[in-house]
Amino acid sequence: MFRLRRIGIDTQAEHVVFLHRNAVEKGRLGLKPLDRVRVISASEEGAPEREIQGILNFCYDELVAEDEIGLSESAFRDLDVLEGTLLQAALAAPPESVARVRDKLGGSRLERSDFDAILSDVVHHRYSKVELSMFVLACALQRLDVEELIDFTKAMIDRGTQLSFPGRPVVDKHCIGGIPGNRTTMILVPILAACGLTIPKTSSRAITSPAGTADSMGVLADVALGRERMYEVVERTGGCIAWGGALDLAPADDVLITVERPMGIDTEAQMVASIISKKKAAGATHTLIDIPLGDTAKVTSRQRAHQLGATFEAVARAVGLEVEIAVTEANGPVGIGVGPRLEALDVLAVLDGSPEAPIDLREKSLFLASRILETVGAVAPSQGYVRAREALDSGAAARKLHEIIEAQGPKAPLSPAPFRAEVAAVDAGRVALVDCRGINSLAKLAGAPAHPAAGLRVLRRPGDGVERGEPLCEIHAQSQAHLSFALDYANQHPDIWRFGS
Amino acid sequence: MFRLRRIGIDTQAEHVVFLHRNAVEKGRLGLKPLDRVRVISASEEGAPEREIQGILNFCYDELVAEDEIGLSESAFRDLDVLEGTLLQAALAAPPESVARVRDKLGGSRLERSDFDAILSDVVHHRYSKVELSMFVLACALQRLDVEELIDFTKAMIDRGTQLSFPGRPVVDKHCIGGIPGNRTTMILVPILAACGLTIPKTSSRAITSPAGTADSMGVLADVALGRERMYEVVERTGGCIAWGGALDLAPADDVLITVERPMGIDTEAQMVASIISKKKAAGATHTLIDIPLGDTAKVTSRQRAHQLGATFEAVARAVGLEVEIAVTEANGPVGIGVGPRLEALDVLAVLDGSPEAPIDLREKSLFLASRILETVGAVAPSQGYVRAREALDSGAAARKLHEIIEAQGPKAPLSPAPFRAEVAAVDAGRVALVDCRGINSLAKLAGAPAHPAAGLRVLRRPGDGVERGEPLCEIHAQSQAHLSFALDYANQHPDIWRFGS
Repeated sequence: MFRLRRIGIDTQAEHVVFLHRNAVEKGRLGLKPLDRVRVISASEEGAPEREIQGILNFCYDELVAEDEIGLSESAFRDLDVLEGTLLQAALAAPPESVARVRDKLGGSRLERSDFDAILSDVVHHRYSKVELSMFVLACALQRLDVEELIDFTKAMIDRGTQLSFPGRPVVDKHCIGGIPGNRTTMILVPILAACGLTIPKTSSRAITSPAGTADSMGVLADVALGRERMYEVVERTGGCIAWGGALDLAPADDVLITVERPMGIDTEAQMVASIISKKKAAGATHTLIDIPLGDTAKVTSRQRAHQLGATFEAVARAVGLEVEIAVTEANGPVGIGVGPRLEALDVLAVLDGSPEAPIDLREKSLFLASRILETVGAVAPSQGYVRAREALDSGAAARKLHEIIEAQGPKAPLSPAPFRAEVAAVDAGRVALVDCRGINSLAKLAGAPAHPAAGLRVLRRPGDGVERGEPLCEIHAQSQAHLSFALDYANQHPDIWRFGS
Repeated sequence: MFRLRRIGIDTQAEHVVFLHRNAVEKGRLGLKPLDRVRVISASEEGAPEREIQGILNFCYDELVAEDEIGLSESAFRDLDVLEGTLLQAALAAPPESVARVRDKLGGSRLERSDFDAILSDVVHHRYSKVELSMFVLACALQRLDVEELIDFTKAMIDRGTQLSFPGRPVVDKHCIGGIPGNRTTMILVPILAACGLTIPKTSSRAITSPAGTADSMGVLADVALGRERMYEVVERTGGCIAWGGALDLAPADDVLITVERPMGIDTEAQMVASIISKKKAAGATHTLIDIPLGDTAKVTSRQRAHQLGATFEAVARAVGLEVEIAVTEANGPVGIGVGPRLEALDVLAVLDGSPEAPIDLREKSLFLASRILETVGAVAPSQGYVRAREALDSGAAARKLHEIIEAQGPKAPLSPAPFRAEVAAVDAGRVALVDCRGINSLAKLAGAPAHPAAGLRVLRRPGDGVERGEPLCEIHAQSQAHLSFALDYANQHPDIWRFGS
């Protein structure tokens, strides 16, 4: 028997169990490092009471004594007994659903019941990081067919809780990502809410990018709303821009992301299931999916864009969600700013009609808003653009965003980042393309999104001419070290800006 | 700046860096949990001095203070500076070779230089568990072609150190595994050494099985020999049965195994590269590869067995190793015992000519020994079996094993496991097949190999008749809890023993 000790380590989605090496080597347990172990608490009468599983790490003197079991934070929370409680430990078999993942790796199909079993184990933190990686890569590499993808999506939806806005069309919009800047959501939501639509938008924080919509909106307002406050905000204003992670809409996705992020790979099945399940769980009835197409975007051929769009449509239809696909051209960032604060500034400039507002961000937002207005029949066909522009240019959208900010809880203005430097052109020319991946890497090295004021101002964009020595972009960083990392990267990658004839 | 604190946690191949959450949230660093971080020590003059990278875990009060950086054991060892040393931390880019792994996941080929870069980062602990999983699964699922497999194998060999026994044929033998018991190596090595061959055998500990050869031999003698002692033992006796892990023959493989083991999948490329590189590194000139074929073996069709054999031959040839393939039938365990001690008892019974010795283990060992004797020309063609049997039945092989045990360092006899129970047949019948995977799981639940005396005695094997209520096997365990786990599993899986007509 061991006594429970709480070890204050946040191991994210993986439960970790810490045992003193001597306790194991004295042969009491028959365990090896990285084995999966069951930790069982005994009630007063000796009957097993509560149990968790975790991955074993051996440790030495200071952390746990020989008669103690240490648990990482999430494991401690899930076991939910007091420190000092008497515990037993034993080798655990992997969750039975791991066998299904292995079958998938071997090329077999997964059924709805398999996805239910796998995702149920995933949300209960029964999968190790290695097993999570196996599942994500099995789906990525052995391709899910459309039926599997639908089953996967339904199983995702069933793991979370759903929002509901009864009796009206509820619109939503999602971009598959990959394009720096591109903060259209924060413009389109107030336009559509100003036009009388209901748009309770839930967004993610950055996964592999320098800013997600939730990060940029988080510069202006509280985004961790929770269910009740979100209902209140939408009731009052018609819209919101909230962080989906606070709403438990897709708990399975929240766990899978902990391995997808460090993998840095795009797994299409995962993306479609993640997006459609979140939209459905957030109560949407109509969703517009923006698929940027370009040489350095996630999707690089028109054929792939259309295939992906068809997949979105098939899965959305199966879960009862109307979906509209917009394939948009992308030869570089949309807007000037990259990083939470700098993107928020672009949004405010567009809404305020400032002369410095980036035209491309304005026009893309109007285009997407017009598509939604027409899809739900809020305007006559081909009248969407006129209506959206009217909402924007009249100042109605700007007022609506401020209403939403007030309702969500405004933030104090964020100071600009103190360390800045320009990246200068080494040659003259006309910019043909700005590499989205390079810009994302550069902004992340500058500290975005963890430092919300860090990022880039992209000063030369496709179509612009530049003279040798003129600035291509301005880096904003919170420390000299971050500024140096980013500048080094920019100097080593001069082809982020590609010049045409 | 932070002060270094040693955190006594063995995280195996992954470096883990611990930072207090407040230190990160105060915005000093711009880091998220599971980010990869560089930890840099500054010399007296302020110039960077030593650096490691690791995966970030956040933690709370007790473990590290806000001005401390904690390092897991391997990270602490690799950074190699004193506790209290001043350190800086910053976001790190993934190793550049991870991009090659991602390319492979996307379907491209890997070149020799890619494998060199990847495995070099792997042995220096620069890959996280998720990245290691990506590499293993990329090789498993996107299939390496033979040229890639050869490059992979050569890159593995180049990462480790090589043994050398100049001027004579050096023979070796390897089984691809999956068959419980099957401890032929411990019989064949003394037979061949008694016949005058040089056989410096390096074996692994169990990865996913209840016992590896190194575990069973470890019951009788020291197996962690190190290079110099291994040379001495082979010089004196002509053979040895040593644990390969003590010899740094395949350090990349040692790291990859930390994710392969919990995956529990067989990755063929990994297996071929691992086996051939270790044989080459161990100085072998001739190797026999045993590929067991059966419905519950790793290889279930004769065609696959021949394909796999051809792959072994192609890769071996490319690195200058003569290889001979033996496809052997397997309808269940080979021998009676499963688990380190119980398998060692079978080996001693065969060598001693005991009437209880399992015939199948004896005959398989003689067959494999005869193939090797003929392959290297130690006997006239077709005279191998006679020569091997003579070495066995004369007692020469038994004397040779005791010579080897004496030279390696004998162990005190291991007591039998104190807790035992029989699994009884629920029906009468004739055993057609014993499920190798089921037997392996059962023996592992009983505590093997961590408890070397734990395991099974398989009392009814293919061809045997059994009456209802008669014992099918006897479980040996070191604790009542392990005995119960194993019995529960046996009761839930009555089809481990399958009956024929």
